[in-house]
Amino acid sequence: MTHDDTIVALATPSGAGAIAVIRLSGSDSIRFVERQFRSVSGKELSKQATHTIHLGHIVDENRTIDEVLVSVFKDPNSYTGENVVEVSCHGSNYIQQEIIQLFLRKGCRMATAGEFTLRAFLNGKLDLSQAEAVADLISSDNEASHQIAMQQMRGGFSSEIAKLREELLNFASLIELELDFAEEDVEFADRTQFKALTERITFVLKRLIDSFAVGNVIKNGIPVAIVGEPNVGKSTLLNALLNEERAIVSEIAGTTRDTIEDEISIGGIGFRFIDTAGIRETQDVIEGLGIQKTFEKIEQAQVVVYLFEADVMAQDADKSRNVQIELEKIKNKYPLKPLLIVANKIDKLSEDAKSKLNRVLEDIENAQFVLLSAKEGIGVELLKDTLLGFVNTGALKNNDTIVTNSRHYDSLLKAFEDIDKVKHGLESGLSGDLLAIDIRQALYHFGEITGQVTNDELLGNIFANFCIGK
Amino acid sequence: MTHDDTIVALATPSGAGAIAVIRLSGSDSIRFVERQFRSVSGKELSKQATHTIHLGHIVDENRTIDEVLVSVFKDPNSYTGENVVEVSCHGSNYIQQEIIQLFLRKGCRMATAGEFTLRAFLNGKLDLSQAEAVADLISSDNEASHQIAMQQMRGGFSSEIAKLREELLNFASLIELELDFAEEDVEFADRTQFKALTERITFVLKRLIDSFAVGNVIKNGIPVAIVGEPNVGKSTLLNALLNEERAIVSEIAGTTRDTIEDEISIGGIGFRFIDTAGIRETQDVIEGLGIQKTFEKIEQAQVVVYLFEADVMAQDADKSRNVQIELEKIKNKYPLKPLLIVANKIDKLSEDAKSKLNRVLEDIENAQFVLLSAKEGIGVELLKDTLLGFVNTGALKNNDTIVTNSRHYDSLLKAFEDIDKVKHGLESGLSGDLLAIDIRQALYHFGEITGQVTNDELLGNIFANFCIGK
Repeated sequence: MTHDDTIVALATPSGAGAIAVIRLSGSDSIRFVERQFRSVSGKELSKQATHTIHLGHIVDENRTIDEVLVSVFKDPNSYTGENVVEVSCHGSNYIQQEIIQLFLRKGCRMATAGEFTLRAFLNGKLDLSQAEAVADLISSDNEASHQIAMQQMRGGFSSEIAKLREELLNFASLIELELDFAEEDVEFADRTQFKALTERITFVLKRLIDSFAVGNVIKNGIPVAIVGEPNVGKSTLLNALLNEERAIVSEIAGTTRDTIEDEISIGGIGFRFIDTAGIRETQDVIEGLGIQKTFEKIEQAQVVVYLFEADVMAQDADKSRNVQIELEKIKNKYPLKPLLIVANKIDKLSEDAKSKLNRVLEDIENAQFVLLSAKEGIGVELLKDTLLGFVNTGALKNNDTIVTNSRHYDSLLKAFEDIDKVKHGLESGLSGDLLAIDIRQALYHFGEITGQVTNDELLGNIFANFCIGK
Repeated sequence: MTHDDTIVALATPSGAGAIAVIRLSGSDSIRFVERQFRSVSGKELSKQATHTIHLGHIVDENRTIDEVLVSVFKDPNSYTGENVVEVSCHGSNYIQQEIIQLFLRKGCRMATAGEFTLRAFLNGKLDLSQAEAVADLISSDNEASHQIAMQQMRGGFSSEIAKLREELLNFASLIELELDFAEEDVEFADRTQFKALTERITFVLKRLIDSFAVGNVIKNGIPVAIVGEPNVGKSTLLNALLNEERAIVSEIAGTTRDTIEDEISIGGIGFRFIDTAGIRETQDVIEGLGIQKTFEKIEQAQVVVYLFEADVMAQDADKSRNVQIELEKIKNKYPLKPLLIVANKIDKLSEDAKSKLNRVLEDIENAQFVLLSAKEGIGVELLKDTLLGFVNTGALKNNDTIVTNSRHYDSLLKAFEDIDKVKHGLESGLSGDLLAIDIRQALYHFGEITGQVTNDELLGNIFANFCIGK
């Protein structure tokens, strides 16, 4: 099924670069481009072979918009399975927009988010979980999430599901066959073998379902809130972790008004660091909003890093007490969140003071601690290791299939329930017609994952999360 | 001359998009990619025809980095004139970096800024002013700058210069020939015709030199500083001009701490609006820095827009006096800068008050004024028209060649001086050998523009301003 309407969108990131690529798909896409294209060689675009590139100019009447390279892909040998043209133009925003606007005026339609991939799915170029992996691949920003998305895009996850589905389907046919011969009371499906299969499916499903906890973390990154009094060096710590000057570092307390998020990869896992305004009391309206945000961010974080100045703890009894009060506040408010206490500026401490600090921190229950100097880079690697310790990376190392998609997770949970019912039915000697109902349900939920079972609303939800141009 | 070392760089903007393009150039570029590429069809990349596209995977040992499309361009039919490969991969930052890092490990070199275009120039694919136009084209963000860059890239400017140079060269040869026959006292070069030529060259050069004023403005946009007391609606005005919510608009005076720059196109000309913190007196350290920045920005602006609240002027004598004091301050400090006084919030004024305000503003010397309501959108179009009135767009409308590059401007100025000397030499009957020196200088400066005369330092300076990947 190739579409009659031609969709167009920018396929490369917006912004200025050396080049930009504008993509068109649909049965008329080559003719649409041909009408606005003056080939340097004078050849007609529609008569060119698939997978060829042509130099020329995009023109609107007598006005030349840009010198471009045009790549032609012919149905079915393209990403979408339809005729596809990619126009590679100079990378100014202005030119990108002029060319897209031109094609829109001439009758193309702006592609919706993920519409190219949706067409690829509808044309049978990839199954649903592979299509979803395309979006994951694009948003992957560390080794772990990239590895999982690649495996899924190449069909690793689909084939595991498809294999289970096929075996289940075989038994289902036998059971359904029994129903046709119900009066003769025969058993085509070997109940012992069938029970063994349900055990095996249960085992695999359980492993996949369990993998979602780590999969979710890998996909979205682990949110880590960095909190503490103003001016203790949160932005400097963030910079040390990021190895770049992202946050504005200033000597003036309260400089960081907005929370700044950034992600770094530690051991292949993404950690999303959230630098927050401190939680001191304040009269300032804007900063007050910042402190409220801090608590919201702690709520969302999986790990809380509490940062304070080691030298202050050592010298100023009042401020030291403040630190302890705040730590208690956080521990009381979020008793189950892993808390990591970080003593900053230890380069300013004597060895004696460091030992004393160590003893104080060791006495704090339900919390780990690290001594460091963000400015000098001391202890930053230890902090990274400690953070990595919060994640279970076993499945990742074994190269197992890991579920990262909450839609797949839901379907797997439902399939698990169905199979569980089948298992209990088998044990209690349930009749074939009742067994068949539960088996069909399980097959349905397996099919949801790969897209063998689908509907418009489901597809709409999935592809709405794609970027436009993909 | 094709290069033995293979350069690699990201050609599309950085950031996540549907796809990204990584470009390699050099005599070995196809073999470099071939070694890391597993073609789906199994064909060898180096045996494929130029301008063809191939589907496969980029691999590092046994690890698959991405499914990609590889475009092959063969020497001399490529952008650089060398073998070029473009790898179109999925658009995650992670994948882009992994692929580039892989090629760097295998022996490619990271391209320096503009190095692809430098190679195109060195290989004779385009002249120097055309190469420079590529960078201008990429940075063009309005119709006028795009039109000029396209004309220059297609050789419009080069051919105008080349024509003058050729005619001058003809006469130069005749003069030099005279020198060979010096003892016979012959004149091969018709002095009257030669004088007419110098007149014509002078005329063309003068037009080109004069065009730089408008060219510079078109290329860089016209900086317009918006100043005024805090909370008079500068951010709202900026938003009304931009038609989008860019600046943070808040009821709290002094919200805008950083200057925010944005550009809009009015009648095809770019105006760069600079929203500044007000110039009231303040004790706040950070805001104080903002006010200092305001004066720096006025310094750089070509037009100053002074904004105040019309209703305040009408009701509060103190604040009205403040406005007048500040206006005087700006006029005294920058007597030559065009000043545009904008009375905001006129939707809150009675018709009587508006007439009165009109009379007051008419009396202010050396300044234009506009009454508007940024919030209601009243008078915003009039403001745009008034701003456009500050620019002379004649040359643009006539489709004349416009000089936008300060390097070209310098060479044109020097050539102008040389020709002027030749002209005076001719008038005073200067001897052929002395005339020849000045003519050679003029030829040299013409050649600098198109790159017929060049050196490494010059090339280094020019291409350093390009983006990497072009």
